[in-house]
Amino acid sequence: MQLSDLFTAQMREIPPPMWGPGDSNGPSRIALAFGDADPTMLPHEDLIGAVAEVLSSDLDGALNYGPTYPGLVRVAAERLRRQGIGATEQNTLICYGSTQIIGLLPQVLIAPGDTIIVEAPTFLGAVMQFRRSGARLVGVPVDAEGMDVGALETTLAALRAEGVRPKIIYTIPTFQNPTGATMPLGRRLRLLELAIAYGVLVVEDDAYNDLRFRGDAVPPIAALDTQGWVIHLRTFSKIFAPGVRLGWACGPQALIDRLAMCKVEGGSGPLMTRVVAQFAQDGRLDAHIAELRARYSEKCDLMLAAIAREIPEATTVRPDGGFFVWLRLPPGVSATALVPVAAQHGVDVLAGPRCYADSSGDEYVRLAFSYTPETQISAGIARLGAAIHSLM
Amino acid sequence: MQLSDLFTAQMREIPPPMWGPGDSNGPSRIALAFGDADPTMLPHEDLIGAVAEVLSSDLDGALNYGPTYPGLVRVAAERLRRQGIGATEQNTLICYGSTQIIGLLPQVLIAPGDTIIVEAPTFLGAVMQFRRSGARLVGVPVDAEGMDVGALETTLAALRAEGVRPKIIYTIPTFQNPTGATMPLGRRLRLLELAIAYGVLVVEDDAYNDLRFRGDAVPPIAALDTQGWVIHLRTFSKIFAPGVRLGWACGPQALIDRLAMCKVEGGSGPLMTRVVAQFAQDGRLDAHIAELRARYSEKCDLMLAAIAREIPEATTVRPDGGFFVWLRLPPGVSATALVPVAAQHGVDVLAGPRCYADSSGDEYVRLAFSYTPETQISAGIARLGAAIHSLM
Repeated sequence: MQLSDLFTAQMREIPPPMWGPGDSNGPSRIALAFGDADPTMLPHEDLIGAVAEVLSSDLDGALNYGPTYPGLVRVAAERLRRQGIGATEQNTLICYGSTQIIGLLPQVLIAPGDTIIVEAPTFLGAVMQFRRSGARLVGVPVDAEGMDVGALETTLAALRAEGVRPKIIYTIPTFQNPTGATMPLGRRLRLLELAIAYGVLVVEDDAYNDLRFRGDAVPPIAALDTQGWVIHLRTFSKIFAPGVRLGWACGPQALIDRLAMCKVEGGSGPLMTRVVAQFAQDGRLDAHIAELRARYSEKCDLMLAAIAREIPEATTVRPDGGFFVWLRLPPGVSATALVPVAAQHGVDVLAGPRCYADSSGDEYVRLAFSYTPETQISAGIARLGAAIHSLM
Repeated sequence: MQLSDLFTAQMREIPPPMWGPGDSNGPSRIALAFGDADPTMLPHEDLIGAVAEVLSSDLDGALNYGPTYPGLVRVAAERLRRQGIGATEQNTLICYGSTQIIGLLPQVLIAPGDTIIVEAPTFLGAVMQFRRSGARLVGVPVDAEGMDVGALETTLAALRAEGVRPKIIYTIPTFQNPTGATMPLGRRLRLLELAIAYGVLVVEDDAYNDLRFRGDAVPPIAALDTQGWVIHLRTFSKIFAPGVRLGWACGPQALIDRLAMCKVEGGSGPLMTRVVAQFAQDGRLDAHIAELRARYSEKCDLMLAAIAREIPEATTVRPDGGFFVWLRLPPGVSATALVPVAAQHGVDVLAGPRCYADSSGDEYVRLAFSYTPETQISAGIARLGAAIHSLM
């Protein structure tokens, strides 16, 4: 008898780990591949202060057994209500990063072979989670205004003709990862209308929502939804620090209850939930977000200016927020061929195919301006330009 | 069309939440029901110090995206190697509390109807997790030397006669929750022999391992296992603070790899894993454990003395460590009847049936000496005595 006999049928074969070597910003080259936070903006002193405050005022609550701090649920729900989302303490779930929610959603919704509609391109972490679940991923193109809702309608109709009712439409409508595009109100309304008509859950990943550089806010799709077809995902990673591993979801109660059940460890820890709530509650978080917007806006402008100067043959669309510039390479240059050449030139970028469920997009690279110091952004783009020109 | 149509078949109906109101120590009565840590022993200053040290030395590593800190994996593995377990950085997995591991194990091993052998009585959290998975739970009695391995053999043989190969034998061999019993070496060897002969995974939950008051350490079952049939669970909850939500598992690589895959959020956070490693690395953790042993030993003695004085008709077995005294009530007194009467007298205790998969054990209550201040333990036992005597 072998131990492996005891594994369930689905667990006999397992895929390789989701993240591999090189799937984070490394120190040896200029790092433009991954959307880590700006290290100079990480709230060092504020975090130590918040820990000390929490432990002084509520040591037993923070360090003993206990649930997610309800005060953080209130903070999270209140931030959503400001934007018109009907969030309550009941329908808001704190998780270990919004990645955990993206990972738990298939446990509630996906049987192998079920269909998930994703943007093309989209967030590679979500693609990996969805693929793990055995889902069939169907891409809908993104243009300068986000997901093409006309193409979405065609896709939904075609699937219906096959007898397929998709389970999820996964969208990043605001400062999309990787394109930076923001979906205007009209498209959001149409997307919601289609989702309801076809009976599909909208997973609105709004990780970058608070990081707007210019222009007016567009209502979240969840704020437009009166019938309970949208789950809205947010994260403290982009507005406080990724390392605290806290995000949240707000959605239909039946779905939130099931996600909470699949979260086998129960809450998200009494300590860090108190620490983040402490930081958020007296206006420090909003002040910090204002500083982040200014900083990331500057870095974005710096990158776009460098691209215009160093790689005039490339095409970009200026994002109104977020972490990324999506760069269309000069004709004939392949992203897959470029990435190792760029690395030889001393800069890391992400090949477009990493962002597509079907591995297309070889004419694009994703550039993150979030992580690398201002002083290195121009140098990084110059190196990338040299690498591109060496391939032309 | 309804949203609920989209849920997978298993997710249509969901059970009530695992933990309910009253499933933690409350402030209004003397709290002897739940095994929370002693609040006066929570490492307040050390924790703030460790956070400051970590953020000073490795801000980007601690607060940006990143995996579980490998330094904590090394700390965890090294603690197991000291006890003869063949732990490496590869076969040791850090989780959000050992509860998360107990929750993930069924995802790898259990299809509905599969059998899990548990001790009778055992840890109620594990029973809830296992029951959730649709497993059939079969209890094997515990006596003053832990699980009765003769009864285990009978059970395994009877199941084999039914054509059933159980998936898991779940045991807490050291300072068992709730009985406090410790399994001697001979029984551990026999349990392992039976597990191998019948091809069943041993889940050795050794949460209380480090909290020995007296007597010599007994080798963990995992240290006796040369054939890869044991997964060993530990936690920082009992030796540092429950609120950091960090535990670990060491076991057969194929099982650890699958648990890591089911842990959809990836690592257990770059920040808290660094903070706990910082505290552990320079001897502070071992010094702290020595203080905890002394404190909990005193509190245990205080409770046993109070029981002898106040409830001489009750029976207890002195534990050699851990958090609990398991009290056999005087003949004719029902734990289920007693709990509300005790609450009226101003003390909370846990009814025995909460610790049995089959809800038997109405002649027992579990008393935790870990949480309540020394000054209140005697008063709590006096109140319990009065409640018991009112029912006799």
